[in-house]
Amino acid sequence: MRIFGFWTALLCYNNPSFMAGKNIVSLSCSVILLSFIWAALAPAEAQPERPPYLELAEKIARKGLEEGYAYTIVQKLTRIGGRLTASPQATAAVELMSQEMQTLGFDKVHLEPTIVGRWVRGSVEEGRIISTALGSIPISVCALGGSEGTPEAGISTQVLEVRSFEELRKFGEKARGKIIFFNRPMDPTHIDTFEAYGQAADQRVSGAVEAGKAGGVAALVRSLTLVEDDFPHTGLMRYETGVARLPAISISTKGANVLSQALEKDPELVVFLKTSSENLSPVTSYNVVGEITGSEKPQEIILLGAHLDSWDLGEGAHDDGAGCGQVIDALRLIKQLGLRPKRTIRAVLFMDEEFGGTGGRDYARSELRKAETHLVAIESDRGGFLPLGFDIGGGDAMLNKVRPWEYLFKPLGLCWIRPGGGGVDIGPLAASGTILTGLVPDSQRYYDFHHCSRDVLEAVHPRELELGAVDLAIFSLVLADNF
Amino acid sequence: MRIFGFWTALLCYNNPSFMAGKNIVSLSCSVILLSFIWAALAPAEAQPERPPYLELAEKIARKGLEEGYAYTIVQKLTRIGGRLTASPQATAAVELMSQEMQTLGFDKVHLEPTIVGRWVRGSVEEGRIISTALGSIPISVCALGGSEGTPEAGISTQVLEVRSFEELRKFGEKARGKIIFFNRPMDPTHIDTFEAYGQAADQRVSGAVEAGKAGGVAALVRSLTLVEDDFPHTGLMRYETGVARLPAISISTKGANVLSQALEKDPELVVFLKTSSENLSPVTSYNVVGEITGSEKPQEIILLGAHLDSWDLGEGAHDDGAGCGQVIDALRLIKQLGLRPKRTIRAVLFMDEEFGGTGGRDYARSELRKAETHLVAIESDRGGFLPLGFDIGGGDAMLNKVRPWEYLFKPLGLCWIRPGGGGVDIGPLAASGTILTGLVPDSQRYYDFHHCSRDVLEAVHPRELELGAVDLAIFSLVLADNF
Repeated sequence: MRIFGFWTALLCYNNPSFMAGKNIVSLSCSVILLSFIWAALAPAEAQPERPPYLELAEKIARKGLEEGYAYTIVQKLTRIGGRLTASPQATAAVELMSQEMQTLGFDKVHLEPTIVGRWVRGSVEEGRIISTALGSIPISVCALGGSEGTPEAGISTQVLEVRSFEELRKFGEKARGKIIFFNRPMDPTHIDTFEAYGQAADQRVSGAVEAGKAGGVAALVRSLTLVEDDFPHTGLMRYETGVARLPAISISTKGANVLSQALEKDPELVVFLKTSSENLSPVTSYNVVGEITGSEKPQEIILLGAHLDSWDLGEGAHDDGAGCGQVIDALRLIKQLGLRPKRTIRAVLFMDEEFGGTGGRDYARSELRKAETHLVAIESDRGGFLPLGFDIGGGDAMLNKVRPWEYLFKPLGLCWIRPGGGGVDIGPLAASGTILTGLVPDSQRYYDFHHCSRDVLEAVHPRELELGAVDLAIFSLVLADNF
Repeated sequence: MRIFGFWTALLCYNNPSFMAGKNIVSLSCSVILLSFIWAALAPAEAQPERPPYLELAEKIARKGLEEGYAYTIVQKLTRIGGRLTASPQATAAVELMSQEMQTLGFDKVHLEPTIVGRWVRGSVEEGRIISTALGSIPISVCALGGSEGTPEAGISTQVLEVRSFEELRKFGEKARGKIIFFNRPMDPTHIDTFEAYGQAADQRVSGAVEAGKAGGVAALVRSLTLVEDDFPHTGLMRYETGVARLPAISISTKGANVLSQALEKDPELVVFLKTSSENLSPVTSYNVVGEITGSEKPQEIILLGAHLDSWDLGEGAHDDGAGCGQVIDALRLIKQLGLRPKRTIRAVLFMDEEFGGTGGRDYARSELRKAETHLVAIESDRGGFLPLGFDIGGGDAMLNKVRPWEYLFKPLGLCWIRPGGGGVDIGPLAASGTILTGLVPDSQRYYDFHHCSRDVLEAVHPRELELGAVDLAIFSLVLADNF
């Protein structure tokens, strides 16, 4: 508006036809004067040349990067420590984040119950190579999530190293009575490390079952990381009805390399393993829910999701404290900037993503959902690293809805919007037609920290984290207003 | 080829007209047989359906990510420690990298001399707030590169805090006799942190001169980083003829905040500063040069550049050990895969980027350049973080040459190719028509480490680093063959 008035004034001033006679001069002077006054008084916000939401997106980014509040939330959460499903720490996290949402003035902050499995690691985790030729060599191990412990005296027996279930089956009777050592590394040649993880995770999830079927006495699984270091990585494993419930134990990548080399020199060596993990009775825990209620269509919901539980090693900083921080901060940014989205933007911090996914399932099937329509769910559960893009479910129809907004994200460094989407927590919503999407950060460093004691606050970079919160705020706002 | 033969065989087998008579059956059998033989024997590489260089790019990426050799080079370099221009460590680095290039079998490995300024930090760096009300508070300081030391007894006087040179000038006579404390922070709202740096670096570069003009006794400059921590960041400062050569000293961001708050409470407080840096006589040092000589046009050169010197704090891991590792590894990947580019691909590790840029200038004006044409120079000097794109100089003509190759980089995670380019080392080549380009990694974490003691090996991520080496290898190869 200002600019338009200013140019009208200049145009009048520069147009000679206005200067051809006295009256016209007088008229032209009036026009010039009025135009300048108009230019000076017209409201500054009416600048039609800027695309919609661009100024708002810049405001959100500025506020986010100046305050870095997503990091503050991760800081608070990680002070609790690891938040294993059903642990006292998980309960404390439910309390803390629900208080946080209330303090920030979110609407309808409440807890939704979910009955979760309970597993405890126990206090003993020991591993050791014992070889006549090589002596005694300690190896770093930890129990996999859900695993039974070893007998109290531990397990002490020979080892069969394999790279796949197929290879194990070929060994036939040679596997009997042995510790089955699954040692297929993640493939470093994938650019997306999640692909490398996907190709190696069968060893952790099903290693104990396959070892059991082969007559083994324990599964010892190479940690799922691309780094060679001495931190064992935990994560969920599963048993199968009718197959012996063998102890499933993770060994650090360094330990795995040491053991593999030792086996080459002394195939008869023995490994000693001792763990004391156990499965207890299920307990009730909670999803933490808060929102900015929509001003026009409050029952139509854009959901921002992350998970509140984590593994007990480390502090669950990237997995998924980062997502929790981003989701809460996205709503905070929208709220504190006084924005009032047409549809509801809801933050859900799910319980039990890591140990069964009950939180996501119970949220989707809750009675409360019957009066609501979840249009889009956006999950952040890939670590708080530099955001690169959005995975978008719902096919071309949804992609065509989202792509026109790409100009809001490019200046923030987002590189692409691509087909994809989903996430353990929001997955169950798909059945009722919710479009699943996800924030995708860079994955190069993710598995350095994943499910191990390195996943601590110091591993999270405040700016990388905050950019994700900013992206989520803008994305959910645009969807809530324009879906 | 294999596929074509295979399909011919199948086509013959499935086509009923070949089966209509006895002779024809016999003929068809022969055709089938020959086709299968052809399918089995034809060379596998002739698969016309894949775009040029894509398979090669994948090979380079696989080898790079499997071996991670760029990191090995950074590891070797950082064992030397900081490589301040004209220091014994810089000399050791020249030796080590020249040996490395020879061991890797690069062509025409040689040193090119450059006369460089010599500055030494000295052993004393002390800072302290002294206040009747607040007591004595230590502050972390370091001399800026090129700065004279304080008098031997140190400087102990009152402080004037300013945010800009303009503000300083407004204080007029109030600045006289004081330590001028330049405390304008980097603006965190820039997505590209290099922009934030560019807007704040005047304080470091020209703070001492402006303080001198105002009658001050020293310049105390807030460290150029977006993190609040206790590591002072060094970097080049400059004096001006006719203006007193005041000591120029950097203070950590935490120290700057402490001092600023202390000044609010006690404006009369005194700061004590003591440094012992000094400027010595220039010495001769060297650029390290090696190449893969072009098979068809050896005198036409694609240059990959990085700088071998660093600041003395830290180990110069990101700045610019990372660039050195990437540049050498790019050539290694090309060489070890047996590729023979048409034009020469040359690695130049420049000396003295940080303390005057003499290496880059002397390289450009060397007699040796007269018989050569440098078509494109590509610099890597923005840290070994996740590569995001290429900055491309040379206007639309060059952009149009490069964009058709974008499909090679997208699968590696590169997001864009944009106008830009340059770098201190390669800049002087522009005068003779060389097109300047640069690898651009993510900048979020760069200034956490820049020019301070945190810039060590552990701050570099092997995969992020290697992706840059892979990008440089592919980019230089495509340019060398197709410019």
